[in-house]
Amino acid sequence: MGLVVQKYGGSSVADADGIKRVAKRIVETRKAGDDVVVVVSAMGDSTDDLIDLAKAVSPLPAGRELDMLLTAGERISMALLAMAISNLGYEARSFTGSQAGVLTTSVHGKARIIDVTPGRIRSALDDGAVAIVAGFQGVSQDTKDITTLGRGGSDTTAVALAASLEAGVCEIYTDVDGIYSADPRLVPHARRLPHVSYEEMLELAACGSKVLHLRCVEYARRYGIPIHVRSSFSSRPGTWVTDESEGVDQMEQAIISGVAHDTSEAKITVVGVPDKPGQAAQLFSTIAQSEINIDMIVQNVSTTATGRADISFTLPKADGQTAMSALTRVKDTVGFEHLQYDDQIGKVSLVGAGMRSHPGVSARFFEAISDAGVNVEMISTSEIRISVVVRATDVPEAVAAVHTAFDLDSAGEAATVYGGTGR
Amino acid sequence: MGLVVQKYGGSSVADADGIKRVAKRIVETRKAGDDVVVVVSAMGDSTDDLIDLAKAVSPLPAGRELDMLLTAGERISMALLAMAISNLGYEARSFTGSQAGVLTTSVHGKARIIDVTPGRIRSALDDGAVAIVAGFQGVSQDTKDITTLGRGGSDTTAVALAASLEAGVCEIYTDVDGIYSADPRLVPHARRLPHVSYEEMLELAACGSKVLHLRCVEYARRYGIPIHVRSSFSSRPGTWVTDESEGVDQMEQAIISGVAHDTSEAKITVVGVPDKPGQAAQLFSTIAQSEINIDMIVQNVSTTATGRADISFTLPKADGQTAMSALTRVKDTVGFEHLQYDDQIGKVSLVGAGMRSHPGVSARFFEAISDAGVNVEMISTSEIRISVVVRATDVPEAVAAVHTAFDLDSAGEAATVYGGTGR
Repeated sequence: MGLVVQKYGGSSVADADGIKRVAKRIVETRKAGDDVVVVVSAMGDSTDDLIDLAKAVSPLPAGRELDMLLTAGERISMALLAMAISNLGYEARSFTGSQAGVLTTSVHGKARIIDVTPGRIRSALDDGAVAIVAGFQGVSQDTKDITTLGRGGSDTTAVALAASLEAGVCEIYTDVDGIYSADPRLVPHARRLPHVSYEEMLELAACGSKVLHLRCVEYARRYGIPIHVRSSFSSRPGTWVTDESEGVDQMEQAIISGVAHDTSEAKITVVGVPDKPGQAAQLFSTIAQSEINIDMIVQNVSTTATGRADISFTLPKADGQTAMSALTRVKDTVGFEHLQYDDQIGKVSLVGAGMRSHPGVSARFFEAISDAGVNVEMISTSEIRISVVVRATDVPEAVAAVHTAFDLDSAGEAATVYGGTGR
Repeated sequence: MGLVVQKYGGSSVADADGIKRVAKRIVETRKAGDDVVVVVSAMGDSTDDLIDLAKAVSPLPAGRELDMLLTAGERISMALLAMAISNLGYEARSFTGSQAGVLTTSVHGKARIIDVTPGRIRSALDDGAVAIVAGFQGVSQDTKDITTLGRGGSDTTAVALAASLEAGVCEIYTDVDGIYSADPRLVPHARRLPHVSYEEMLELAACGSKVLHLRCVEYARRYGIPIHVRSSFSSRPGTWVTDESEGVDQMEQAIISGVAHDTSEAKITVVGVPDKPGQAAQLFSTIAQSEINIDMIVQNVSTTATGRADISFTLPKADGQTAMSALTRVKDTVGFEHLQYDDQIGKVSLVGAGMRSHPGVSARFFEAISDAGVNVEMISTSEIRISVVVRATDVPEAVAAVHTAFDLDSAGEAATVYGGTGR
């Protein structure tokens, strides 16, 4: 008898019927003889409704209180799910993040899990019950205040519980039936990937694939927890995310996993930076002080005669205003000429562990982009990834062209995508 | 500088505007220099919405999970209220029942408070913050599970916190502006009572006055906490509930406080009970085993010749079916003839501490009822109360007649009643 951790997203438990359907699926797993721990998100759009209420009483709600408010969402879904399971004749007990022993830092809205002490979960399992745990939340180890984990938090809760309980697998049920070779909304004949490695999944998540959150994959890799991403609307197998070596015939492994894209970033260009040691460092430490993560960086020597260079970098659009203000404040100190802000960009990335041992991947990638008539503005690469920044309007053509060039198009049926939330 | 505990019911925080209005009132108290602890109920009808959701997934939800579900309601209202207060420039922190140290028995849905250990509330006050506490909920001392206190639970939370924090007053803000000499919906010229004693309030609550719950008044009397019942929609003073001797000129104290009525009870008559010792005891122990509280009891010797008597008693309508089934099971053992069930009854009660020293009250009471053409079916009395059971349809006439007979009618404006919840 093994232990399975299952995570259900908000779209899977959007209403009473969804909750009853999920309860049935959980009971089927329980009947098969496994112990089951379930992590659940808030119902459908209920989190957005709570945020609207918060905005109606305060333009800038305190983080502590916003976390207290939002955690009501999972409290509702987990209690209802436990009731629905009991109604099918199986015992179920729901636990808040705090009761489940999810200890976090005290940064409200984006706390990180420090430790999981699942004593009460273990007791529930020992009593033969299904344990239902609220995703996305925990309790601050220092202040004992309720915290939330931010985007993708429920997936991270599930993986962290799986690690602490030494579960055999962490199943992430979502509104798509796995990881695809490209976003099926852009590439209707994208293929479902039966297996990707942690490393590939990290690159895909970092490059815009929204199915699994970066932090959740990092956690799974660190503790070696196999993730099975699958749809709660069908019983088809989905995508396994595991160690590269595990469960996959190396001979059959594809060179390329897929094409990811991301239109959530903007580009800032600092024009005319004096080409002296330390000037770039000063720029980036200014950005870092504002707690902004930058992604790609390119330096172009604009005019060698003047001894000045242009530095471009990409960052989340949401941080654009903050970064521009911070840089403007150091304009005279650094001595650059002016700033350009461009939020009409998109990033297209090709990811595949096989890239390491197969030369010629870059050549084919740039050829495909070029043949599609798309201009490349920035380039960055890792051992298993090539990314380019292009015009946002060129993203669909670039993704489709690269997908076709690497023979990723499926001959079979198109993927099904349902509406979803990011919790 | 004193400490004030304020409790706001669901109708006071039904929407964002209500929450902002309540926040303003709290800040006014804080500005006046007092420390403030606020107990808040769930917003408007949100509890009913949660119950509907529970019914949609399970016909008979487990008590533990129902409590987990319903406590989400206060979590939402208290976080929003804290945000609204912060927005007015005052620090506020919200606490669940568990965080506030409200320790209870483990009877889900109607737990009783065992102890309050308000360490975190005290710290918040020491930091100059307003503490917002979820009403109606606590944590089981034994099982550490979340519990709810049942009807009137938020009032009891407020009084219990006031007692443990040694507050100067517990203000109960509600949708009426105090305790009235009769239900203003039946008697438009009912008078607001500036003061009632704990004992009178207990009798009024037991006899159908819904403004304060019995358990909350018992708690206040035990710890000597003055309660001030007032409207959250106006700034008028309401009704003080205190020790009889406190703050009131004995000379001016009215003989009678008011007339209460209750149409939530039913009457069961057990016909033809053998008139032997122990037969009645057997009936009532059967009822008690079903955990049903009975109210009035009358035994009529029907036919002395046959040695049989009829026993009638009243009980909450909600328990009627359970009681009838339990009694039917002991029909042969006890040897009674048959059962009659009557849910078309109403109870009218006259309450007043002055009754003790003023003879003639009963006579005037029965004369008024009789002059109104109303037939009395059962009678019970205490030192400071007379109650009669009449036909439910006769209740309005009986209440009005008694109210007038004791000169309780006000010459002033009629009372204002708003819609309300019972939490």
